[in-house]
Amino acid sequence: MFFASDNAGIIHPQIMQAMVDANTGYAMPYGKDPIMDEVRARIREIFEAPEAAVYLVATGTAANALALACYTQPWQTVFCAQFAHIEEDECNAPEFYMGGAKLTLIPTKDKMTPDALAAAIARRPNGNVHMAQAGAVSITQATEAGTVHTLEELRALTAVAKAANLPVHLDGARFANALVTLDCTAAEMTWKSGVDVVSFGGTKNGCAGVETVVFFDPEKAWEFELRRKRGAHLFSKHRYLSAQMQGYLKDDLWLDMARKSNAACARLTAGLREKGAQFVHSPQANMIFVRLPRATHQRLHAAGAVYYVLDGDMDNGPADEILRSRMVCDWAMNDDLVDQFLSHL
Amino acid sequence: MFFASDNAGIIHPQIMQAMVDANTGYAMPYGKDPIMDEVRARIREIFEAPEAAVYLVATGTAANALALACYTQPWQTVFCAQFAHIEEDECNAPEFYMGGAKLTLIPTKDKMTPDALAAAIARRPNGNVHMAQAGAVSITQATEAGTVHTLEELRALTAVAKAANLPVHLDGARFANALVTLDCTAAEMTWKSGVDVVSFGGTKNGCAGVETVVFFDPEKAWEFELRRKRGAHLFSKHRYLSAQMQGYLKDDLWLDMARKSNAACARLTAGLREKGAQFVHSPQANMIFVRLPRATHQRLHAAGAVYYVLDGDMDNGPADEILRSRMVCDWAMNDDLVDQFLSHL
Amino acid sequence: MFFASDNAGIIHPQIMQAMVDANTGYAMPYGKDPIMDEVRARIREIFEAPEAAVYLVATGTAANALALACYTQPWQTVFCAQFAHIEEDECNAPEFYMGGAKLTLIPTKDKMTPDALAAAIARRPNGNVHMAQAGAVSITQATEAGTVHTLEELRALTAVAKAANLPVHLDGARFANALVTLDCTAAEMTWKSGVDVVSFGGTKNGCAGVETVVFFDPEKAWEFELRRKRGAHLFSKHRYLSAQMQGYLKDDLWLDMARKSNAACARLTAGLREKGAQFVHSPQANMIFVRLPRATHQRLHAAGAVYYVLDGDMDNGPADEILRSRMVCDWAMNDDLVDQFLSHL
Amino acid sequence: MFFASDNAGIIHPQIMQAMVDANTGYAMPYGKDPIMDEVRARIREIFEAPEAAVYLVATGTAANALALACYTQPWQTVFCAQFAHIEEDECNAPEFYMGGAKLTLIPTKDKMTPDALAAAIARRPNGNVHMAQAGAVSITQATEAGTVHTLEELRALTAVAKAANLPVHLDGARFANALVTLDCTAAEMTWKSGVDVVSFGGTKNGCAGVETVVFFDPEKAWEFELRRKRGAHLFSKHRYLSAQMQGYLKDDLWLDMARKSNAACARLTAGLREKGAQFVHSPQANMIFVRLPRATHQRLHAAGAVYYVLDGDMDNGPADEILRSRMVCDWAMNDDLVDQFLSHL
Repeated sequence: MFFASDNAGIIHPQIMQAMVDANTGYAMPYGKDPIMDEVRARIREIFEAPEAAVYLVATGTAANALALACYTQPWQTVFCAQFAHIEEDECNAPEFYMGGAKLTLIPTKDKMTPDALAAAIARRPNGNVHMAQAGAVSITQATEAGTVHTLEELRALTAVAKAANLPVHLDGARFANALVTLDCTAAEMTWKSGVDVVSFGGTKNGCAGVETVVFFDPEKAWEFELRRKRGAHLFSKHRYLSAQMQGYLKDDLWLDMARKSNAACARLTAGLREKGAQFVHSPQANMIFVRLPRATHQRLHAAGAVYYVLDGDMDNGPADEILRSRMVCDWAMNDDLVDQFLSHL
Repeated sequence: MFFASDNAGIIHPQIMQAMVDANTGYAMPYGKDPIMDEVRARIREIFEAPEAAVYLVATGTAANALALACYTQPWQTVFCAQFAHIEEDECNAPEFYMGGAKLTLIPTKDKMTPDALAAAIARRPNGNVHMAQAGAVSITQATEAGTVHTLEELRALTAVAKAANLPVHLDGARFANALVTLDCTAAEMTWKSGVDVVSFGGTKNGCAGVETVVFFDPEKAWEFELRRKRGAHLFSKHRYLSAQMQGYLKDDLWLDMARKSNAACARLTAGLREKGAQFVHSPQANMIFVRLPRATHQRLHAAGAVYYVLDGDMDNGPADEILRSRMVCDWAMNDDLVDQFLSHL
Repeated sequence: MFFASDNAGIIHPQIMQAMVDANTGYAMPYGKDPIMDEVRARIREIFEAPEAAVYLVATGTAANALALACYTQPWQTVFCAQFAHIEEDECNAPEFYMGGAKLTLIPTKDKMTPDALAAAIARRPNGNVHMAQAGAVSITQATEAGTVHTLEELRALTAVAKAANLPVHLDGARFANALVTLDCTAAEMTWKSGVDVVSFGGTKNGCAGVETVVFFDPEKAWEFELRRKRGAHLFSKHRYLSAQMQGYLKDDLWLDMARKSNAACARLTAGLREKGAQFVHSPQANMIFVRLPRATHQRLHAAGAVYYVLDGDMDNGPADEILRSRMVCDWAMNDDLVDQFLSHL
Repeated sequence: MFFASDNAGIIHPQIMQAMVDANTGYAMPYGKDPIMDEVRARIREIFEAPEAAVYLVATGTAANALALACYTQPWQTVFCAQFAHIEEDECNAPEFYMGGAKLTLIPTKDKMTPDALAAAIARRPNGNVHMAQAGAVSITQATEAGTVHTLEELRALTAVAKAANLPVHLDGARFANALVTLDCTAAEMTWKSGVDVVSFGGTKNGCAGVETVVFFDPEKAWEFELRRKRGAHLFSKHRYLSAQMQGYLKDDLWLDMARKSNAACARLTAGLREKGAQFVHSPQANMIFVRLPRATHQRLHAAGAVYYVLDGDMDNGPADEILRSRMVCDWAMNDDLVDQFLSHL
C-alpha cells in the first residue's frame, strides 16, 4: 500500500526490456544513436509536430530548468503557481540554469487562473529597468495539486501570456496523467493551446529516469544542446535514455500506465469520499490531498500504508484532529491494494 | 574494430543484470535506496575510507563540475592540464557550476609536471584582489593523453598543491584503467597521495551512465547534496544508478574490465610499434595517440576500423603524409579484433 | 516642489567640497587612500564597532547585493518584505550576486512582522534537499513604505532570524532618516539589535554616489573585497568615494540632513492630514504614500509639483477618484516649498 | 616622481569643475539627466556614429565585463591576449558577467597577432557541442604592454574575427593614449576597423571614475541597460558621471591629457634609452617596461621615485642583476619630474 509518491516504484518491464534490447553493438554516443532517431520521429508524430526539436534528459528538474533557460533572460522572472515544482522542489535549479532569473509566484488555489496571472504580469511593465522583466510563463499539467487544466483553461492562460508576448512552458512531469484525464491529443494539450516548450515526463510514469523536452520552435535546438551539455546532462551512452523512451512510447504503454494510475486514484478517491473524507483540491489525476483524522492516519500507517501526512505530528495530538495528507498512485497500483487500504478506514 | 571511444559500446551484462534485479518493490527515492547503502559501504571499503562521503551522478562532467564546485570559489581558478577534459570537453560546465571561476591551463606534454604547476600557482599570489585567486588543482588519471601518473608523480603534484594550501581533485573517468596500470590500491592513488575528492568513473568502463564522487572529507557531504540537487542531478529513482555501481563493483568486475581494455590496448600498441608506428604520448592505459601515413588510415577505415584521425583531412592529401590519430579500447575489445586490425597495417 | 525622490537633488556643498579638497597629490588606489582610513575609523566610532570591516561602493544596489552574497549560498533564499528594494527595484541584482539564490517575499503591510517572518522560515525546514534552504533575513530601515521599525520591532525580527541561525542584513539606504526618527545610536539600530551587516546609505541623503557596507564580523572582510572586485565595484581612484563619505560624516552632516528631510516630510504630512488626506502607511521618515483625488493631483502637478501618482492614469478619469501617490522629501526640501505645495491643496 | 600607475593621480581641474557646475537643481536620475544627452551627442560626434548606443559606468572592469556580456553566451569563450586586463586584473568579473564563459588566452609578445588569433579560433570549430564555443574577440588598445596596434594591425585582427563571424570588443582603458599615438580618428580606430563595441576609458586619463561604453549597433541598447542595472552599475545621481565625461570631452581635454602623458613617457623612454636601458616591449603610449640593474632601482626608489619592480626582490640580491620594472606617466607628469628622475640614473 505505497501511496507516498510515483517516484519510488519499479519501472515497467517493457521499458527494462527495451534497455536490455538496446545493449548490443556499438552506437554513436551523445544522442546520435539510432534509437533516438526512432524516439524523435515518434514524439513528433505524437505531438503532430514534424519540425519539433526533441531531446532527452534524465531528470524532471533538468527538463524544466533547461527548457526555461532557453526562454528566459537572467534579468527576467518566470510566472508560476505558488506551489509549482520549480518553486518548491528544485532547490533553485531553475534560478541556477537561468543565470539568476526570478520566479514570481501566482497565488493559486487549485490551478493558476488567468486573472491572477494577468495581474502578476501587469506588475512587470515593459521598459522599467529597475524591475525584473516579465519572462516565461510556466504551467504545470497535471498540477502539483493533483488537478488538471481543461483545454479551455490552458488556452485562457496562454492567451494572457501571448498578449504580453511571453513564451509558455508546460511542466508535464505528469503529462500522461493529464492527457488521459482530458482525453485529448498531445498536440491539443500543447502547441494547439499555445505552449512553446514541454517537459514530457517519463520518470514518474514507469521509466527509470528520462524526460523528453519538446520545442515546437526548432530554432531553439542548438541553444538547448549547448545548455544541456554545459549543464552536464548530455549522456555519452545516450542509447539507454533513448531505449527507455522507446519502450515507454511503444504500443501506447505511456497512456496505458497513466490510465492505470488515474483509475486507481479514482477508486481511492471514491472510497475515501464514501467514508466522508474531504479533499483539499478536486482530484483529477493520480494524486490527491485528503483530510483525515489523526487516528485514521495512525491506523492506516499501522496497517502498512505509506504516504505523507502534511500537517503537524501524526503521532502526537488529539485523535480527532484533522490532518492533511497526500496520496499518489503510480502505474503499478491495483484495485486489491486500494481496496485493502480502504478497508482500514 | 571500434576504437573511436570507450563511450559507445555495450554495458557489461552483469551491470545490466543488476539493474534488472533492482527492479522489484518500492525503494526510497533520491539516494536513500538500500542498494546505495551497499554501494557506499563497498566504496568506503575499496578506498579504505570509512568516513568518506559517497555520491552517484550519471555523467562524468557532472561528477567533475560538482566536485570542483565544492572546492572552488567563483573568484578562484582551477589549475589543470591544458588538454584536461574539464577544459576541452565540458562546454564550460565547470565554470557554470563554479559560478564563473576560471581554469588556468598548465602547459603539458604527456602529464602535468610539478614544476609547471608550481609556476602557474606562483603567478597567483595570495592577497592580490585584482587577480583570480588560486583554487583547486585538478589532475586527470589516466590522463587524456593516455598516460598514467605514477604514485611518485601524483604525490609530487599534490605536494605542490598542499604547499599552497590548495585542495586536489582527481578526474578518474578512467580511474580503473590507471589503477590496474599502477597495480596499487585505490587509497594509494587517492587520499594516501593527497587527493581530496575523486570522480570515480563507471561510464567509460562498462556502465550505462554512473560516476561516483568520493569526498574523503565528510564535511563536504551536505554541500554536495545541495549542489547536486540544484544542478538537477539528483535522481528520484536512484536505485537504477545504485544498481549499476553495485554490478560494477561486484566481484571486482570494474578491475577485470579495465584489465581487459588495457591488455587489448597493449596488444594494439605492440602491434603498431612492430610496424614502426610512432606514438604521440607514451601509451599507459587504454588509449593511444599514434602517427600513421594517410594511406594507412585510409586502408584501415576501408577495412571497417573506426577511430578518429586528428590532423587535417584523412581523405585528401599525400598518401605518405603522417597524420595523428586516437584509438581507444573498451572492455569488450578482444584479441581477435585487435589482430584483425593489425593485419591491415 | 520636487517630491519625486531623494535621488535627484544636488549633493550637499560640504560633500562636494570634500571631493575638491581630496583632489591633490597622489593617493594609493583601490581603497588604500588615507581618507578611507579616516572614514573607516569614523564609521567604527559611530557604530561603536572597533573591529568592523568597512567598505565603500557607489550604489545602494551594489551594497545590498554584495552584502547579501557574503551571507547567502546559491541554494538558499533570502527572506524580505514583499515590497523590499531588493525585490522590486534591483532587476535581479541580488539573485545575480548570490549566484541564483531566491528571494522569499514576506507578506507585509507597513513593516515586516516577526510572525510573518517566522511562518516563512518554518516553510523551509533544515535538511530538505529539494527546497531552497533558509538563508539571510533582509530588513529595510527606513522601509520602502516610509515606516521605521522601532528597536523593539527590529529585535523581535532578528530574534526570529537568530532562532533559526540565520544572519541579518539591514538595507539602510535611508539609515539616517530612520536613526533620527528613533533617536537612538547607530549601534543600537544595528548590532545591538542583532544585525550582522548593514548597507549604510549616503546617496539618497546628499551624497553623489556612495554607500558604506559595515560587517560587524571582520572575518567577512576578504570575501567582500573579492566579491566587490569581481562585481567591478572596486574603484581605482577610490579617494573620491572616500571623500564623499568623509564629508557626509563630518560634523554629523548626515544626521543634520536626515533631520531636515524628515522635518520637511512631517510638515508635509501634517498639512496633508489637515486637509483630510489619507495615508497608505503611517509616515515615519521622509517618504509618504498619500491618497488624493485625481483633481487634486492634477492641480498640484499643474502648479509645478513633481511626484509619482501610483494608481492608473492621473490625466484621465473621474475628478473625485482617489489615487495613491508617493512623495519624498530630500535634505534640500524646505518649509517654503512645502507650504507652497500645501497651498495648492 | 610617481610612475606607479595612471590611476592614482588627481583628476583634471576642468573635470572637477564640471562636477561642481552640475551640482544645481533637480535632474532626472538613472541616466536621463540633460548632461548625459550632451555627452551622448558628443560621443556620437567624436565616433562619427549618429546611431550609437552610449552609456556610462564608473569602472573599467564594469565597462569591459558588461560590454563582453552583451556579445558572449555563457557557453562561449572570449579570445584575448594572454596578459589582457580582463584576464589578469579583473578577478573573474568578465566570467561573472558572462555567466561562466571562458577566456581563451592568445599567446602574445607585444601585441596579439592575427595568426595566433586565427589558430586559437580554429581550435573551436562550430558545431562541436563538447567544447566552449567561439565567442567575442577582445582587443586592448593601447595594450597592457604599452604597445599600440596600428590601424592595419587592428584591421587584420578584426578580419580574422569577422571571418569566423565573431564580434569584436575593444578595451580602450587607454583609448586616448592610443589615439594620439596613431594620430587617427576615433571612428578609424573602432567601427571603421571592425570594432563592434568599445570601452572608452576616462578614469586612467584624468577622470575620477567614468568609462563610456559605445555600441555601434544600437540594438544592443536595452540589453545593456538591463545588464548594467542588474550589475548594480546604474547610478541614480547619474549626472555626476555625466559631468565627468562632459568635462573630459570639452575642448578636447581628453586628447590634450593623453598627449601630455604620452609625451612625458617618450621623454622618459628617450632618457632611459640614452643610458642604455633595455625595454621589454616597444614603448608606444604612456607605459613602459624597462630592464635596469637592481642598484639602479634602489637608487631611484631612494630618491623618491615610485614604480613597480616586477622581478624578484628589489632590496636583496646582486647589485648588477637586471630586474624588469613598469613605469607609467599620467597626464600630470611633466618634464621637470621626468628629468629629475633621469638624473638619478
